[in-house]
Amino acid sequence: MANPTAAMLVIGDEILSGRTRDANMYFLAGELTKHGIDLTEVRVVSDNAPAIVAAVKQLSDAYEHVFTSGGIGPTHDDITADCIAEAFGKHIDVRADAAALLQAHYDNSGQEFNDARKRMARIPDDATLIDNPVSVAPGFRLENVYVMAGVPSVFQAMVASVLPTLIGGAPLLSQTLRIERGEGDIAGPLAGLAEEFSDLSIGSYPYQRNGAYGSNIVIRGTDGARIDAAITKLSGLFS
Amino acid sequence: MANPTAAMLVIGDEILSGRTRDANMYFLAGELTKHGIDLTEVRVVSDNAPAIVAAVKQLSDAYEHVFTSGGIGPTHDDITADCIAEAFGKHIDVRADAAALLQAHYDNSGQEFNDARKRMARIPDDATLIDNPVSVAPGFRLENVYVMAGVPSVFQAMVASVLPTLIGGAPLLSQTLRIERGEGDIAGPLAGLAEEFSDLSIGSYPYQRNGAYGSNIVIRGTDGARIDAAITKLSGLFS
Repeated sequence: MANPTAAMLVIGDEILSGRTRDANMYFLAGELTKHGIDLTEVRVVSDNAPAIVAAVKQLSDAYEHVFTSGGIGPTHDDITADCIAEAFGKHIDVRADAAALLQAHYDNSGQEFNDARKRMARIPDDATLIDNPVSVAPGFRLENVYVMAGVPSVFQAMVASVLPTLIGGAPLLSQTLRIERGEGDIAGPLAGLAEEFSDLSIGSYPYQRNGAYGSNIVIRGTDGARIDAAITKLSGLFS
Repeated sequence: MANPTAAMLVIGDEILSGRTRDANMYFLAGELTKHGIDLTEVRVVSDNAPAIVAAVKQLSDAYEHVFTSGGIGPTHDDITADCIAEAFGKHIDVRADAAALLQAHYDNSGQEFNDARKRMARIPDDATLIDNPVSVAPGFRLENVYVMAGVPSVFQAMVASVLPTLIGGAPLLSQTLRIERGEGDIAGPLAGLAEEFSDLSIGSYPYQRNGAYGSNIVIRGTDGARIDAAITKLSGLFS
């Protein structure tokens, strides 16, 4: 049976302006791969409501799971929760369960649970909260969309909360063989190998180091024995 | 006048499987921002022809420029050129101008210009070549789509070839002020500032360091004097 499919939506001007190098996509990709969920598409959009709403609808229709990152803090540019509510036609307001979590947190730390902070308790009707052990303000799941923070430490903690609740498929396994020849020399035999092992994905990632060309050949699949067989054959081709 | 808009399409299983952390998006975002072109959307898709063709068509329709990265090497998983041809209904084959560049390069280096390497000379009809000073094999432009390599050093060199040919708008300027208070404390006044300076984009990027909360407030726009005014007002709010 094929693995479940997933998409990610990264929300934030800071990525598209080049201010911040995204870290969450790389992290999520690795975690989903280990969990047997195929990350099939990623989109990055700016803090623009129509763009967020349209992307959420399209990805939610096209994939089994959608993970978003960014835009759920207390400031005016944090519009993700409202956009998710709009995408699914849900009412959104400060919700008692999320407000209670935050109220307790700010009571403890002696800070005021003011209007800005209440913004972080805006959760659409019918959404399920996602635990945030780092900084309390929760994410949420609505239908097949998991809405998480953009700050990498919080995003990672939320992914750790969510992943055990998802049924994964077979983890994607991989082996890599480095071949110290130019891609142009190995491409012919490699294409033959890819045809013979068409149940596996065989990628070639070239590099150039100290003037010498080489390539890392990565063989991916869910059947470890097949990957072993392909790697053995591959190393025979270029030994 | 509004700046030209752009999208990027990153092509490659290695990004979606978490093997490789993308570097090209971050690089391109910074370069376009300096050049006054607004990167509005990024998509990442796997080495899957229907996904690539569909994304190219949608992005080419929606934005003024589209930049792709990945999938133009000599191996079987390099299918980008053929997908671009398909997206625009163009014929594609080994083209004399690209083949001549590569032939000269391999003659020089004493390597065989074999069938695999000829794959890198597959260029759609009506496309214009993009110079590759790093490793010769060219990228190309077809209509408003710029097709470039995934290897970061080559991608960067190709971007450097392309950017001077594009008419940019006003470069996006930015100033950052670090405020050593939690976002929840500053969000209210910040929203007022964002309303007053609605011609600018004001983003808040929180951090936590040694247990203390703070946020970097980034003010972006094309009018330096307006940004100065907003920063002055901002620093007055929290001094």
